[in-house]
Amino acid sequence: MRAAFIRHTGPVENLVVAELPDPEPGPGQALVRVRAAAVNPIDTYVRSGAVAMDLPSPFVVGCDLAGDVAAVGPGVADLRPGDRVWGSNQGLLGRQGTFAELAAVDACWLYPLPDGVSYESAAASALVGLTAQLGLAEHAGLTRGETLFVNGGSGGVGSVVVQLAKAAGARVVVATGGRDKVDYCRGLGADAAIDYTHQNVGAELARLAPQGVDVWWETSRAPCLSTAVHALAPRGRLVLMAGRDARPEFPIGPFYAKCCKALGFVMFLESPDVQRRAAETINGRLAAGQLAVPIAHCGPLEETPALHHWQHAHTVLGERPLRGKLLVAP
Amino acid sequence: MRAAFIRHTGPVENLVVAELPDPEPGPGQALVRVRAAAVNPIDTYVRSGAVAMDLPSPFVVGCDLAGDVAAVGPGVADLRPGDRVWGSNQGLLGRQGTFAELAAVDACWLYPLPDGVSYESAAASALVGLTAQLGLAEHAGLTRGETLFVNGGSGGVGSVVVQLAKAAGARVVVATGGRDKVDYCRGLGADAAIDYTHQNVGAELARLAPQGVDVWWETSRAPCLSTAVHALAPRGRLVLMAGRDARPEFPIGPFYAKCCKALGFVMFLESPDVQRRAAETINGRLAAGQLAVPIAHCGPLEETPALHHWQHAHTVLGERPLRGKLLVAP
Repeated sequence: MRAAFIRHTGPVENLVVAELPDPEPGPGQALVRVRAAAVNPIDTYVRSGAVAMDLPSPFVVGCDLAGDVAAVGPGVADLRPGDRVWGSNQGLLGRQGTFAELAAVDACWLYPLPDGVSYESAAASALVGLTAQLGLAEHAGLTRGETLFVNGGSGGVGSVVVQLAKAAGARVVVATGGRDKVDYCRGLGADAAIDYTHQNVGAELARLAPQGVDVWWETSRAPCLSTAVHALAPRGRLVLMAGRDARPEFPIGPFYAKCCKALGFVMFLESPDVQRRAAETINGRLAAGQLAVPIAHCGPLEETPALHHWQHAHTVLGERPLRGKLLVAP
Repeated sequence: MRAAFIRHTGPVENLVVAELPDPEPGPGQALVRVRAAAVNPIDTYVRSGAVAMDLPSPFVVGCDLAGDVAAVGPGVADLRPGDRVWGSNQGLLGRQGTFAELAAVDACWLYPLPDGVSYESAAASALVGLTAQLGLAEHAGLTRGETLFVNGGSGGVGSVVVQLAKAAGARVVVATGGRDKVDYCRGLGADAAIDYTHQNVGAELARLAPQGVDVWWETSRAPCLSTAVHALAPRGRLVLMAGRDARPEFPIGPFYAKCCKALGFVMFLESPDVQRRAAETINGRLAAGQLAVPIAHCGPLEETPALHHWQHAHTVLGERPLRGKLLVAP
């Protein structure tokens, strides 16, 4: 099969697109013919070694996939050849990734792809959708009628948080940078969008949510926790899943005086059962047309190095715009 | 009745001990003949105005009490004159306090005093016991076999956290300052005690809890969250209920990568039902001899200004040692 892989962690140049032996489905696994796979920032961190993980060699990159079951290994009862599936959690914790024509995936990480939903849509929603839904439902415990704020509403995770929170009945306010992104966030369903390039987020939130925000979803790599804690309502929840190197000041007094919580999490450390619950909600939203993750670009497997470059230039360097997900269709 | 009260917030000198009209129990209230009342740091903050609250005038200070029901108002079914009771949550949120011969208290905040437990023991355990138990059970969700660390194991809340966590089956490590306090914490049941005056807390914890601590209970007014987050185990919980003016650096990366939570809370914002659940556990511990809050001093009501002075000198100025609670017996 054709695959995008590395033999050693390092720069984009370490990525090779070439032939590898077809994988075989082991016990409990399905062999998936990959129809679409999405790039996530963590793909670039694992590839570069910035996030240290035990990796097989060669190591196929990529977490997300959607495709068709080609075969199943021993002990797989719920999947059959021909089933349309999607999933994430690959290319992590020692598992092979998804940027290949075939992937052998533990069945616990595969979910049925609803009729009428494309492979591309499902792959684009996989990691970001699971992250958003896990954070909203399992961590923040968002309830109907609450106000949620997303700092970075146009980003990969942020844009899904907006849609899933709206579908869950929340009022959604975002901050984002620039007129285009404000319009983009409104198009995703945000009730209000603050343009941080010329508006003060704290002051605008005091106007838009004078009772405070119930959930503050932080996506910035350099968050201001003073603004966040100040804006939180009593019993507010602060969701943290980005900002790897950030060490902002944390105002403890108002945080505990308002009985707030800060909830850190990483999607891929959640259990298969918890993730399946999130996937079921995502399937419902996808099928109902309440979730549509924009796709910025979808190319052949050969473009994987270029897409890693683009993702890094956008997420880490802030040099290249990206409005939606980067995909390959192997 | 004799009472310790203020007419305006301000320094200790504003505290007057004199006669006030006897209160009458309103609907849903019990009139309690106060046998013991304990000083807590928040008493001094409310009195000084450092914590702004709506206060009646005159305002009787104090949160904690233990005593006998003298009479009940309309609609009180569960309490009868002569019942021995204890409670907290008074002198807060517009309610009158407990430093008086009589207090009219909403019955929802009163708990039965177990046979064989003294008024002094119950009053001394009230606010600190409820705080500790609420934090351990309702927020941190401490489970048997987990490792809990208390930064400040000899303090008012810390010393109760040690005892309640031990009684709940946790392994307990503390940090405290000086040989005497180390011995004191061991006497309370701590499995290990770090003396931060000449030991490095992070390094000692790495040795004592190489898998990380499951719950870090912070009581310092100037916490180091870098040390705390570094020491937390995967899915560790950081309990925050002190450090009103602290703004330490918060290392977001390791916090979310380990799926940690920071849990802020204030005891008196919890509901009566939740607090009653905590009080029932405390009663069980008191009756079983598993909880004994040391009493540093118990004097007459007239000593209230001196005790406020002592509490402030200890907690805020760090000038005067205090090993246990300060009480009055009106």
